[in-house]
Amino acid sequence: MCSPSATLAPSSTASEFVSALLAEGLLIDTGVPGVFGKNGAFEAVVRGIDALVEAAAEDMRPELVRFPPVIPRSLIERSGYLAGFPQLIGAVHSFGGGDADHASLLRAVEQGGNWGEFLSSTDVVLTPAACYPVYGMAAGMLPPEGRVVDAASYCFRHEPSSEPGRMQIFRMHEVVRLGDPESCVAFRDEWLSRGESVLHEIGLDVRCVPANDPFFGRRGRLLAATQREQALKFELVVPITSVELPTAVASANWHQDHFGELFGIHDASGATAHTACVGFGLERITLALLRAHGTAPERWPRAVRSALQL
Amino acid sequence: MCSPSATLAPSSTASEFVSALLAEGLLIDTGVPGVFGKNGAFEAVVRGIDALVEAAAEDMRPELVRFPPVIPRSLIERSGYLAGFPQLIGAVHSFGGGDADHASLLRAVEQGGNWGEFLSSTDVVLTPAACYPVYGMAAGMLPPEGRVVDAASYCFRHEPSSEPGRMQIFRMHEVVRLGDPESCVAFRDEWLSRGESVLHEIGLDVRCVPANDPFFGRRGRLLAATQREQALKFELVVPITSVELPTAVASANWHQDHFGELFGIHDASGATAHTACVGFGLERITLALLRAHGTAPERWPRAVRSALQL
Repeated sequence: MCSPSATLAPSSTASEFVSALLAEGLLIDTGVPGVFGKNGAFEAVVRGIDALVEAAAEDMRPELVRFPPVIPRSLIERSGYLAGFPQLIGAVHSFGGGDADHASLLRAVEQGGNWGEFLSSTDVVLTPAACYPVYGMAAGMLPPEGRVVDAASYCFRHEPSSEPGRMQIFRMHEVVRLGDPESCVAFRDEWLSRGESVLHEIGLDVRCVPANDPFFGRRGRLLAATQREQALKFELVVPITSVELPTAVASANWHQDHFGELFGIHDASGATAHTACVGFGLERITLALLRAHGTAPERWPRAVRSALQL
Repeated sequence: MCSPSATLAPSSTASEFVSALLAEGLLIDTGVPGVFGKNGAFEAVVRGIDALVEAAAEDMRPELVRFPPVIPRSLIERSGYLAGFPQLIGAVHSFGGGDADHASLLRAVEQGGNWGEFLSSTDVVLTPAACYPVYGMAAGMLPPEGRVVDAASYCFRHEPSSEPGRMQIFRMHEVVRLGDPESCVAFRDEWLSRGESVLHEIGLDVRCVPANDPFFGRRGRLLAATQREQALKFELVVPITSVELPTAVASANWHQDHFGELFGIHDASGATAHTACVGFGLERITLALLRAHGTAPERWPRAVRSALQL
């Protein structure tokens, strides 16, 4: 199904792959690891994947919402994210001083100093996952049938890396289920199968594996083990920089009543709601396609181009 | 041309307009001023405007590039933005500590304290304008004919406001010219006229006015006056929350050799390049349409719906 391209053998290294993407102009270097510009050809593929995910969700008649790439600081405080993933946070700081402080700030900039100390917290942080603002929006009582929400946004995770598959800022398209436990488990399992179909359709060699989130620190190792033990999270993995260690390009999660409890979401019976979500990483799927079919999308197999509306 | 809708009289106040948008679900409140979610109807209009701008630029055969909503800190340091607009900056801070610092951070969160002090600067800041990464990318020598680049991204400006037309985070679609002074002035003037046509086509009552950027502090007042005196910046304004004080929905700027100098961009003759750009505010244009034609896009005039591919 997944035929490695002529231009990029499966044994080529991660750094050869990045060099090829930069040389073709598909990625544009900014000088910061994991922060890339993209050209029109790359973006056309992203749009195609986006549309495939939207189409795969269509029969569930999701509410479509789009939040910007920053969310309220209060939302992240409430969400438990700072307990689990402080190392990935992107808090937005700004300048509130007068002319004198401004002069000091500019002096620090000029001397290559740390001008961050002249800034202070704002009310927003970068969105860590497209589904977070959905839980904030859903606080209160759900309708009897629960809710299905289609959300997508740029997400930030502070993990600078030279691996193209680990960008600090990337787009995630999610479908979120809020309702009773049974409907959430069924939703997650249904989406593992739909996700596999979508990725197969565009010629990707996908596998489904149990997974855990990258929880922080000592306590985090315990959380990760529990998450695996309870079989809450699964990832769809595809070769990008390594065939032996394929990269997660999508994941499906059952959060039990974690977000329902934190955000005060109740089902129609008054019980704390359960939630589940499936997320597709648009840049990672694009990279997997470029790896599988070669770095010239105009020469990809006709069926793949047609599925992506290229 | 611009017929006020039946549902929203031109005399309705700004807060009545916001209430109507929230009630219809077009905007979704997040609790932070100027940070809104949007529903599918709002997003369809945004996509329509985006496509109109792309089509208006087509005969210039621009290179299409898309950068994420964060850019390198070094780029913003080099750009002069911190001299002109420190009050609008959004610098991204993250957590680099260990388990003990993490415990202190979580205590601060729990006590409603300032956990920002446990964070430090990262290598990125939020994108203030879609064209900034283009100047970074263009450092070096231009081809003989210069360059035309189509760029779009979410932009952040820290100015919390209850006015729907002044979002902290919004999308800007820009076309950028890099070349000699004559081509840049001609580009700016051409785009004032094209911009007016695009906005007229969708039934907006647009006017072109001279303008200046919101430079910071004492020195800023002088910079703003000079910018007006030299007639460098023009805005296309349309009524959103007030007919008397219309809102800028697009602007066209000639930067002279400001960015060419800062980023080391040269034309083929070796002279410092000039630059110009036109930027369309996608949320503001959508709001202007909702103000002009009413808050139900499915009842907008047929010609407007057709132009927006609704």
